[in-house]
Amino acid sequence: MQETTLGRTDSSTGRRSGLIPTRMQALVKRAPAPGAELQEVDVPEIGPKDVLIKVLAASICGTDLHLYGWDEWAQGRVHPPLVFGHEFAGEVVAVGTHVVRTPIGAYVAAESHISCGDCYECRHGLQHICRDVRIIGVDRPGAFAQFIAIPEQNVWPTDRRFPPRIATIQEPMGNAVHTALTTPLAGANVVIFGAGPIGLFAVPIARASGAKKVITVEPSQYRLDLAQRLGSNVVVNPLQENVQHRVLDETEGEGADVVLEMSGNATAIAQGLQVLRSGGHISLLGIPSGPVSLDLADGVIFKGATVQGISGRRVFGTWYQTRGFLDSGMDLSPVITHEMPLSDFHTAFELVRNGQSGKVVMYPNGMPE
Amino acid sequence: MQETTLGRTDSSTGRRSGLIPTRMQALVKRAPAPGAELQEVDVPEIGPKDVLIKVLAASICGTDLHLYGWDEWAQGRVHPPLVFGHEFAGEVVAVGTHVVRTPIGAYVAAESHISCGDCYECRHGLQHICRDVRIIGVDRPGAFAQFIAIPEQNVWPTDRRFPPRIATIQEPMGNAVHTALTTPLAGANVVIFGAGPIGLFAVPIARASGAKKVITVEPSQYRLDLAQRLGSNVVVNPLQENVQHRVLDETEGEGADVVLEMSGNATAIAQGLQVLRSGGHISLLGIPSGPVSLDLADGVIFKGATVQGISGRRVFGTWYQTRGFLDSGMDLSPVITHEMPLSDFHTAFELVRNGQSGKVVMYPNGMPE
Amino acid sequence: MQETTLGRTDSSTGRRSGLIPTRMQALVKRAPAPGAELQEVDVPEIGPKDVLIKVLAASICGTDLHLYGWDEWAQGRVHPPLVFGHEFAGEVVAVGTHVVRTPIGAYVAAESHISCGDCYECRHGLQHICRDVRIIGVDRPGAFAQFIAIPEQNVWPTDRRFPPRIATIQEPMGNAVHTALTTPLAGANVVIFGAGPIGLFAVPIARASGAKKVITVEPSQYRLDLAQRLGSNVVVNPLQENVQHRVLDETEGEGADVVLEMSGNATAIAQGLQVLRSGGHISLLGIPSGPVSLDLADGVIFKGATVQGISGRRVFGTWYQTRGFLDSGMDLSPVITHEMPLSDFHTAFELVRNGQSGKVVMYPNGMPE
Amino acid sequence: MQETTLGRTDSSTGRRSGLIPTRMQALVKRAPAPGAELQEVDVPEIGPKDVLIKVLAASICGTDLHLYGWDEWAQGRVHPPLVFGHEFAGEVVAVGTHVVRTPIGAYVAAESHISCGDCYECRHGLQHICRDVRIIGVDRPGAFAQFIAIPEQNVWPTDRRFPPRIATIQEPMGNAVHTALTTPLAGANVVIFGAGPIGLFAVPIARASGAKKVITVEPSQYRLDLAQRLGSNVVVNPLQENVQHRVLDETEGEGADVVLEMSGNATAIAQGLQVLRSGGHISLLGIPSGPVSLDLADGVIFKGATVQGISGRRVFGTWYQTRGFLDSGMDLSPVITHEMPLSDFHTAFELVRNGQSGKVVMYPNGMPE
Repeated sequence: MQETTLGRTDSSTGRRSGLIPTRMQALVKRAPAPGAELQEVDVPEIGPKDVLIKVLAASICGTDLHLYGWDEWAQGRVHPPLVFGHEFAGEVVAVGTHVVRTPIGAYVAAESHISCGDCYECRHGLQHICRDVRIIGVDRPGAFAQFIAIPEQNVWPTDRRFPPRIATIQEPMGNAVHTALTTPLAGANVVIFGAGPIGLFAVPIARASGAKKVITVEPSQYRLDLAQRLGSNVVVNPLQENVQHRVLDETEGEGADVVLEMSGNATAIAQGLQVLRSGGHISLLGIPSGPVSLDLADGVIFKGATVQGISGRRVFGTWYQTRGFLDSGMDLSPVITHEMPLSDFHTAFELVRNGQSGKVVMYPNGMPE
Repeated sequence: MQETTLGRTDSSTGRRSGLIPTRMQALVKRAPAPGAELQEVDVPEIGPKDVLIKVLAASICGTDLHLYGWDEWAQGRVHPPLVFGHEFAGEVVAVGTHVVRTPIGAYVAAESHISCGDCYECRHGLQHICRDVRIIGVDRPGAFAQFIAIPEQNVWPTDRRFPPRIATIQEPMGNAVHTALTTPLAGANVVIFGAGPIGLFAVPIARASGAKKVITVEPSQYRLDLAQRLGSNVVVNPLQENVQHRVLDETEGEGADVVLEMSGNATAIAQGLQVLRSGGHISLLGIPSGPVSLDLADGVIFKGATVQGISGRRVFGTWYQTRGFLDSGMDLSPVITHEMPLSDFHTAFELVRNGQSGKVVMYPNGMPE
Repeated sequence: MQETTLGRTDSSTGRRSGLIPTRMQALVKRAPAPGAELQEVDVPEIGPKDVLIKVLAASICGTDLHLYGWDEWAQGRVHPPLVFGHEFAGEVVAVGTHVVRTPIGAYVAAESHISCGDCYECRHGLQHICRDVRIIGVDRPGAFAQFIAIPEQNVWPTDRRFPPRIATIQEPMGNAVHTALTTPLAGANVVIFGAGPIGLFAVPIARASGAKKVITVEPSQYRLDLAQRLGSNVVVNPLQENVQHRVLDETEGEGADVVLEMSGNATAIAQGLQVLRSGGHISLLGIPSGPVSLDLADGVIFKGATVQGISGRRVFGTWYQTRGFLDSGMDLSPVITHEMPLSDFHTAFELVRNGQSGKVVMYPNGMPE
Repeated sequence: MQETTLGRTDSSTGRRSGLIPTRMQALVKRAPAPGAELQEVDVPEIGPKDVLIKVLAASICGTDLHLYGWDEWAQGRVHPPLVFGHEFAGEVVAVGTHVVRTPIGAYVAAESHISCGDCYECRHGLQHICRDVRIIGVDRPGAFAQFIAIPEQNVWPTDRRFPPRIATIQEPMGNAVHTALTTPLAGANVVIFGAGPIGLFAVPIARASGAKKVITVEPSQYRLDLAQRLGSNVVVNPLQENVQHRVLDETEGEGADVVLEMSGNATAIAQGLQVLRSGGHISLLGIPSGPVSLDLADGVIFKGATVQGISGRRVFGTWYQTRGFLDSGMDLSPVITHEMPLSDFHTAFELVRNGQSGKVVMYPNGMPE
């Protein structure tokens, strides 16, 4: 790849670091069909309020799998060709003219939701549910590439003592933090449904937030083992035992104070309502693929239960909390089960698809030493 | 009816007021079948912590209609013979030996849920969702009678300037207060689904709590007219227009900040989620008769919405708030559309059944002068 | 005054409406001493994200009086020469190149706090307590002038059915809304200390938010009369009666559920803690001029009371709530006791100083027809 | 001491365990003067709703020291002769006729506040701030004795795997839990002022509740060492360094998100407000001995800070949370620095007085084996 000066900031006053290539490797969803391709494309241009980031690590989210597999949701939302991916960390190599607080060379992760700033929700400090949100790697070019351009407002400065593999998972960890901290957990019996990466993150987060007992429900033994390794006090395989009975047994008959639904599975959601005690709280993060039939009378109304929908994470309240957990020594390494160069994307997506993995991290600019 | 001294308190130190009959008229569900009968039965005995109340007014709740009609729920819960009814007001005429703060002659209404005091919820101050709750007129003898015995802990002293017809509706009004005040309403666009008595109560309560605009959705024109009379800024008949479009029109495209679901109707619940803005709050009070199919992804999760199940009312936090609204002059008279002696119960239940009514009040001890 | 095209936006792509003068009349604090002068000065220039507003009304805040009188606080904060004033409404007449949602001709009010957007608080959606806040008319040129330039992010579009005199008081009304809505008021006994304009605004706001009873404590009879006219159920002159006794009398011995402290007077703050019931909430908006000695043991700790400091208003959550109250018909006209051209500023400040006034509104571009 | 059957329950149907003495050893404040005496007194009688408990351990609270030393507060509140002490654990040996859920032989601790059940606060589920509260060992006979009688409603069943020394400290630990959990701590920088036993308890509680960093401020080196041993990330001696500077240094300039004031010291309270960031939360548990002069303007109002008074603990919400922390393995043993028989009370109180101790536990019925 030919190195050259960038020459692409919109103004002579924009700053840039040394040599930046004009072309880069990127994983591109080329056509409205399953799959993706590694291609050479232009390094993205930056606007006056944008920064250009050299991607040091990018991790795969369930959303990326939807996109890769080109399911119904992807077909309705995404317009190929598109570089996708939205969990990443890297180094700032160029900044636009109106960038004010991000220096060249900054080590950063990024909030993936670009909020409009003008809608009712944004004007209430609820940017995470902005009604005109645009998502990196979904609605605009993403992070499975050597470089990415994003607005400065989405940059999250990160301490260099956290390597790129940890820095990149701050974004999905933020989903878990936001979900877990919606309601107080101190002294609470917490049941987590689904031990994909976000569910796995939630285990140590709930433990560190004072949960009395964390019970993880998940049909994959591989993931249950990870949950246990991350500190889940109890793990339950719903294919092998009655979830409701087990939760009652483990909670002296009280039931769950808090349920964190991370699976999107309709049966799990129904079970979540069943195991909840009266006055309990259930947060829904996992996205069901269709309508879900619920016993609202017994599951929600008579119980006086609270059902909280969770989308994204607080910008940047959740990021500060996430940083707090990392700073205080929380070790999330066990969740990262696989790492590989971006060129092995085929293997990476296969691992995510078959569930024999935690978080999979890819390196667009070469493996770390 | 023969008058005699009561002689029924469990101890010679219990106090009683003058002459109390031994027998009384009561509406009795005699057999596990539709209907009920007016009968002469024993005036109830009182235990050491109970009070005996002469019922000056008793109003009909939807629950009573289930019981009267002997539907599936009633068949599973109620054991005839039973005097039913749980909304009432009256005068204390006898008190048990351990009654400490309720004098003979006190004018009172009553909380209908008798909580156990020992369960996890009770020990958290959440008696309204006690897991061993017993309901007056459902699990023990009720208020469609000349006298009723209840524990002193359920008594709510009421100012005599509120006549029995108003005093008795404090209980269902409490449902509306509890539902409405679960989330701040000041400056909010509030949509109420269902204009039965509780939905109707909710209209002035929401207005008095600072709602910017109250929109009532209800298929009965009779009830929509009542809603308007009670101050609903907008009324919508879902049989005649598109609810979602109308709500968006009325809210400058923002949608509802708060939805109060008082109907239990599955379509209404689905519409409630549709009209809710991102970050909005929906309280569910109406009890659906079966499972409800919901679009949790778009209706709850992506919106970051809060769904709050509502059961009963705070004991006695809600009662204080209810008193506050009454004290500050809230006029709920329009909700009370019919009044009659208990002996006209047939007519009364027919009015409730056909929906051409608001709240129906019955008088077991004669019509007020 | 000579009319000319503005020619002052920083870029040829900024938009402007017809003829804008180059010079204007403005009230200028010229020197570090009491008083101010009406002068002709340059119409302010606008940056790329700014708008230029023709000021149709500007109202006087207590802060302006501090500035005018040049007290200790003003001496420590303000650097003359300065055009001051921060409550205003007007019409947008020019916009910078990066202004995206505000059209020329828009009728607007403005948030007076310009937040940095980068500090811990701003990144938590708490711009009202930004640690690097700059205040219009205090830290940069203000609104007692024919034109003012402010960042677009501070603009609040206002409906033209509210005349400039009402539009300008949205800002201080917002203080009252923010103070009053920090805690639920439905069914609550609310005591307001201080019936200056913000305390007066709080009266109908508390009433409209469901307060059971509003009690206003204020030594000026003129202002007590205004409080009564605005709906205060009880008014108490602390010079004439014992505040604590009266509050207990008026609340059946319970005490205040909520205290709104709008006076900044040390005695009032102490009384506020005294009249508060156990578990009550007191919001402090009034700014004491020095340290205040408090009985924390009896007033706060044993009571389990909550003391909430209040600064500014939520941006823009409070503005939406304020709009909601205005839209639903709240009439704040009685608070506006005097209106005059800007040139009568001398009289205006004298009225504010002597307390024989509610809110005083000035018109820099001529009285409305 | 002569053993005999109790024969003291008010009814022949009360139950009792085997032989209970008629007389017992108790620490009695005999006269309105400093000091106390070990005496033989009658074993207390129980009412119909009471239980009699054999005290296996009783610990000393600061309140007991006030009583022992007979300071101004004690003189105004306490009426000798009185058996004092209110932190204890033991075994139920007799129950009144109306006791329904506590069996003979139950191993229990107790809530020390006996609430009236009838006041505004009690009827809102806020028994911890009951306005007619009576405190064990202050307003009625206490626990520095071989036996104590208390209402069944105050009993807290405890698992036998926690020895009496741990069971007895649940009560003061509850103060710390209640104080710490008033506001979310996950990801927060928490500063604790005062490392007496409650402050020391707060250290692991805050850590277990997700605090990013716990900073303890305390002038006694002995106690700072204990704080460090219990997990405080930073310890600060205010006699040796500038508290505000150190806190800012340790928090990257942000200041404290949360302050827990456990000292009651006026200087500490003022420093607590200084180190608090804008929008921060300070809980006040420590009771100042007189009025405290505060800079409300800079410390509370401009910051938009929340000051929360803390009294007692939630009944029984806090007890459940406390149990949760103990169940999940929190080790509070380091706080218990001294244990001795009740007869050594002189030494015990001296240790508490001179500050060279954490929690001191006494054994009225002999040291455990």
